[in-house]
Amino acid sequence: MSKLIVKKFGGTSVADSVRIEAVADIVEQTVKEGNKVTVVLSAMGNNTDELIKLAKEINPEPDLREYDALVSTGEQVSVALLAMALLKRGIKGKSYTAYQLGIKTNSSHSRARILDVEVNKITKELAEGFVPVITGFQGMNDRGDITTLGRGGSDTTGVALAVALKADECQIYTDVDGVFTTDPRVYDKAKLLENISFEEMLELSSMGAKVLQLRAVEYASKFNMPIRVLSSFSESKGTLVQEENNIMERPIVSGISSIDTEAKLTVRGVPDIPGVAAKILGPISDAGIDVDVIVQNIGADNTTDFTFTIDQSDLSRAEKILQDTSSSLEGGQLEVDADIAKISIVGRGMRANAGVASKMFQALADNEINISMITTSEIKISVVIKKGEMKAAIKALHDAFDLDKELDS
Amino acid sequence: MSKLIVKKFGGTSVADSVRIEAVADIVEQTVKEGNKVTVVLSAMGNNTDELIKLAKEINPEPDLREYDALVSTGEQVSVALLAMALLKRGIKGKSYTAYQLGIKTNSSHSRARILDVEVNKITKELAEGFVPVITGFQGMNDRGDITTLGRGGSDTTGVALAVALKADECQIYTDVDGVFTTDPRVYDKAKLLENISFEEMLELSSMGAKVLQLRAVEYASKFNMPIRVLSSFSESKGTLVQEENNIMERPIVSGISSIDTEAKLTVRGVPDIPGVAAKILGPISDAGIDVDVIVQNIGADNTTDFTFTIDQSDLSRAEKILQDTSSSLEGGQLEVDADIAKISIVGRGMRANAGVASKMFQALADNEINISMITTSEIKISVVIKKGEMKAAIKALHDAFDLDKELDS
Repeated sequence: MSKLIVKKFGGTSVADSVRIEAVADIVEQTVKEGNKVTVVLSAMGNNTDELIKLAKEINPEPDLREYDALVSTGEQVSVALLAMALLKRGIKGKSYTAYQLGIKTNSSHSRARILDVEVNKITKELAEGFVPVITGFQGMNDRGDITTLGRGGSDTTGVALAVALKADECQIYTDVDGVFTTDPRVYDKAKLLENISFEEMLELSSMGAKVLQLRAVEYASKFNMPIRVLSSFSESKGTLVQEENNIMERPIVSGISSIDTEAKLTVRGVPDIPGVAAKILGPISDAGIDVDVIVQNIGADNTTDFTFTIDQSDLSRAEKILQDTSSSLEGGQLEVDADIAKISIVGRGMRANAGVASKMFQALADNEINISMITTSEIKISVVIKKGEMKAAIKALHDAFDLDKELDS
Repeated sequence: MSKLIVKKFGGTSVADSVRIEAVADIVEQTVKEGNKVTVVLSAMGNNTDELIKLAKEINPEPDLREYDALVSTGEQVSVALLAMALLKRGIKGKSYTAYQLGIKTNSSHSRARILDVEVNKITKELAEGFVPVITGFQGMNDRGDITTLGRGGSDTTGVALAVALKADECQIYTDVDGVFTTDPRVYDKAKLLENISFEEMLELSSMGAKVLQLRAVEYASKFNMPIRVLSSFSESKGTLVQEENNIMERPIVSGISSIDTEAKLTVRGVPDIPGVAAKILGPISDAGIDVDVIVQNIGADNTTDFTFTIDQSDLSRAEKILQDTSSSLEGGQLEVDADIAKISIVGRGMRANAGVASKMFQALADNEINISMITTSEIKISVVIKKGEMKAAIKALHDAFDLDKELDS
């Protein structure tokens, strides 16, 4: 059956003319199977990095309107080249900038959000047999300035176009075969997932972000647009990210994600009074530092221990802010630990299965891995452990939840 | 007095971040002297060549709509970087693509012509103290496609904007100090010209084209917009190209141009009947081959010898076409000579001075340089000689017409 498919290819998929020809082959194949295709591209390989390097030679903190005008050229190059490659194959490729199509965003330069996608022009082109090839990652604000969506924004462009065009599927091509039960470089028993729900994909955060921008997943989830994550370098069918109700199987744990680039900060003995969490995290947030895990434990003497994790790159700034806060709160000792890793198990089946947490903790205990923090959400359990034990923990959990086995459906 | 100046900088003037900073210094200086400035830029150095190389990897003859979309990114990069450099200096630089400003062209992709420049937006920006930095070389057609004006089109953008804005002067910055009496690399007595008329600039053709696109000169001449040709690498005041009536001095010869990349084709003994020139040159022109000098001499027996010059790169194609034509015309022998150079002396003073031609021929004769073709126009005399004698001819003529001396005004 003929489908309308939006295909988005990332930077490694269009890194040079050889890769662009390979992408043209993929698009040609889908068109020849009788489908209508709209293509969204990122900039070629490290082209964007080279442009940023040029900007920083002029000014380490360049004006953001001009920064957007500069880096938006990267995708314009790749779409023109792919259109040429399609035309060579007798496919009616036609490049468009987001500007030409009027993809409207707000004015937050370098991290703009898409407000509106006018699809009349694309719909007309599709009806006439064209294959529109569109610059991802960018748009225009209501003043007619060029904006960019921030790193990974091309995924969002792909999903937004798929939603606006009412496409059957949004296919996001990367350099990995799809979403795995865990990072295959960490554990060679990692298995490619056929299906995953939007919510799980979001909860897999750090792991998921390597293959798919979270903003794009949120957008797709909101509008119920199925995303297929697949590789332009292989024939793998990839992973379909979709609404939970459309997936038959319900594994207890779908995947294990890990991150070892965070640091843990603890303030001991702060007064256990209302508003103390806000007082501690407010200044951190004001400094633009993202907080990941937050844990608060009751201590002795009406005091509490407050712990949270942040990215290691923000550690020295956060530490300074926290020292001021702690003394103003008449709090106690400040402890910092960058020797940590966070492991999360994620699965939509957790809702219906008690005992997942205890099974997780038992598996770690059996391997003599000590847990220093625990947080849970409806479909995710995260633990913070010592960095050196990360790989062992992933393997233990992957085995404990039989993630290398085929699912019973 | 405050002026409105359009400054156009070529590729070598914005070749890297160091050069872009130098351009920002020049613009800053002009702004601080109380002038309003609009800037037009070419792409950085060999950026356009690199983009063309990418296109040719995909297809040696790429689709021209896509070719234009591709190469137009080069100027977008340079304008954003210059705007950043101006903002760093406290000058309100603001980049614009021709697309954003609605610089309208026809649809002849890769060699489009500017039809209309809407200046309301620029005028408003100028009034608010901004320095618009605009992509040269490009525009959009009425379908909203990106077009380019062809190599050197940035000069035309500069002049077209200057005309539309009613600027006081259009300054074209290159890597040479201005227009010289002859190529300084050929004869070290060559002298920088303070003034030259539009018509002379056009007649200096090959020499002039190295510093200024002829299309831009034609455009400026039509609208009487003075162009100053100057260097972004030196403090030279450059050469002012303007309407003849505005120049006081009237030198007999202003400059000597030369070209040694042409070839000469002669068809002997074609019938001396009406329409024969059209019959010979028609097929050449249909093949897209530009003809430069044309000379026809009456021969014996109601036949004529027909000679013309073309670029050497077109020689093999032209020769083939000409053989067919010659036999259909029952013409005689075809002669080809690529060992030639064309030397032209140009000067608005020729109109009022008899004997310029004989002085030229005498100077060449004194140096035993043989002339094989002669053509003349109102302000130019061109001769074709042997290539090996080109430098000697230039020196002889430069001395004969005292071009190294100061003018009597």
